[in-house]
Amino acid sequence: MYEHSTTIRVRYAETDRMDVVYYGNYAQYFEVGRVESLRALGISYKDIESMGIILPVVELQIKYLRPAKYDDLLTVKSMIKALPHDHKIEFNQEVYNEEGKLLTVGTVKLYFMDDQLQNKVEMPALMKEKLSPYFS
Amino acid sequence: MYEHSTTIRVRYAETDRMDVVYYGNYAQYFEVGRVESLRALGISYKDIESMGIILPVVELQIKYLRPAKYDDLLTVKSMIKALPHDHKIEFNQEVYNEEGKLLTVGTVKLYFMDDQLQNKVEMPALMKEKLSPYFS
Amino acid sequence: MYEHSTTIRVRYAETDRMDVVYYGNYAQYFEVGRVESLRALGISYKDIESMGIILPVVELQIKYLRPAKYDDLLTVKSMIKALPHDHKIEFNQEVYNEEGKLLTVGTVKLYFMDDQLQNKVEMPALMKEKLSPYFS
Amino acid sequence: MYEHSTTIRVRYAETDRMDVVYYGNYAQYFEVGRVESLRALGISYKDIESMGIILPVVELQIKYLRPAKYDDLLTVKSMIKALPHDHKIEFNQEVYNEEGKLLTVGTVKLYFMDDQLQNKVEMPALMKEKLSPYFS
Repeated sequence: MYEHSTTIRVRYAETDRMDVVYYGNYAQYFEVGRVESLRALGISYKDIESMGIILPVVELQIKYLRPAKYDDLLTVKSMIKALPHDHKIEFNQEVYNEEGKLLTVGTVKLYFMDDQLQNKVEMPALMKEKLSPYFS
Repeated sequence: MYEHSTTIRVRYAETDRMDVVYYGNYAQYFEVGRVESLRALGISYKDIESMGIILPVVELQIKYLRPAKYDDLLTVKSMIKALPHDHKIEFNQEVYNEEGKLLTVGTVKLYFMDDQLQNKVEMPALMKEKLSPYFS
Repeated sequence: MYEHSTTIRVRYAETDRMDVVYYGNYAQYFEVGRVESLRALGISYKDIESMGIILPVVELQIKYLRPAKYDDLLTVKSMIKALPHDHKIEFNQEVYNEEGKLLTVGTVKLYFMDDQLQNKVEMPALMKEKLSPYFS
Repeated sequence: MYEHSTTIRVRYAETDRMDVVYYGNYAQYFEVGRVESLRALGISYKDIESMGIILPVVELQIKYLRPAKYDDLLTVKSMIKALPHDHKIEFNQEVYNEEGKLLTVGTVKLYFMDDQLQNKVEMPALMKEKLSPYFS
């Protein structure tokens, strides 16, 4: 399993009139978590796209256990529990507040796709190389 | 079953560099769909909140089948398949483009909560009255 | 002068914990106003982009007079006070609530640019043709 | 003069189909810059709100010189050039990319307001105390 954590400070813009983070904004927190988890491995998501591979999200599941509040310093944990062996990658993601309380749990599935041909492809070799050591 | 459709025009702000609607923005489309489906019944979500009842989302599931593009006139369908009998309400939601292609399918679960006491409550009487005729 | 109005319903997502529309979200309302004002003339902003012309915003000014609230049905007025004669177009924009109160006043300047060459260009002939009758 | 810089990584969600940061999202970057500039002084904006003082934005001006791109690590500079002596505070804000190029220049004016009474008030004593040393 590969696991990585990053922190995000809740912006005023991300709250709503219920005085909590709007439910749709966790998709952004998850995105930041995934991108930073790859960067920590030496993989730039931007570079993957420059190579002509895009990773559209095909499925999102989130459970909201407790609200995040304005100015909270959240910890977003991103986990890859299985090494992708086909065109799909799955992230398990969790959001914690500063007291270590679990606020949100989610799963995000993405496809590896050729940007030009618009068809599914295998995980880029660089990602396989960097991720493999965590799954032996 | 209660079912309602509303249309939403994709804003430039809602697209991302992949030239499609960002995956997190469907949460807003679903929100608009739910609110308009209630308004069509004579229920103002704003008024429910004024009565001290809030409806936080506790679960969100989305499958992304096809991308929505800039300036698309989307149809958001919102369905309530079972009359809530406790503190929970579930919406099934679908997004279609102008050619009638299904782009996104989702489920949203919300709790009825007392804003002050922060505990779960039953569906407000007004909502029960308006929704009941669709479930006999 | 060319003038056009369109309506926008305030989404929950667009409010913040101050219980008003977040100040940055008016940029989206202005965008919708501009795009709809062009559509009313028979000009699709999307088609302009398909022709290889983009209109990046180069300047934005907004004065916030009164807050917009959740579920308000806003009227966004977009005005072109001078027919563009070079690479620049300016929109004057105003946001009103349902009681007709002026909430926000703004100005947006955009450049006409060639998407490939990334240099400034003149207003597309179609836009000139559609706009000219309002400035004689 | 008081001056402070903070960094922000551009999220995928913040880009648009023009492959740059959407013009409205700079309001969020400016917000983060202001809040962090106050935090560096020992002032929590959240605490100010807890004291019943809110700071609605009353004016925003932005010039867009160069686009910010996906994954850019931006530097947001926030400057207070004059010590507020009435109910108004003004921030000058600038956004730079990693090569030190100036992308965006802006000005944001905010009022100090009593949240309950909804009238203008003076700058809280704590802010005056922390800011004064920079203006002697």
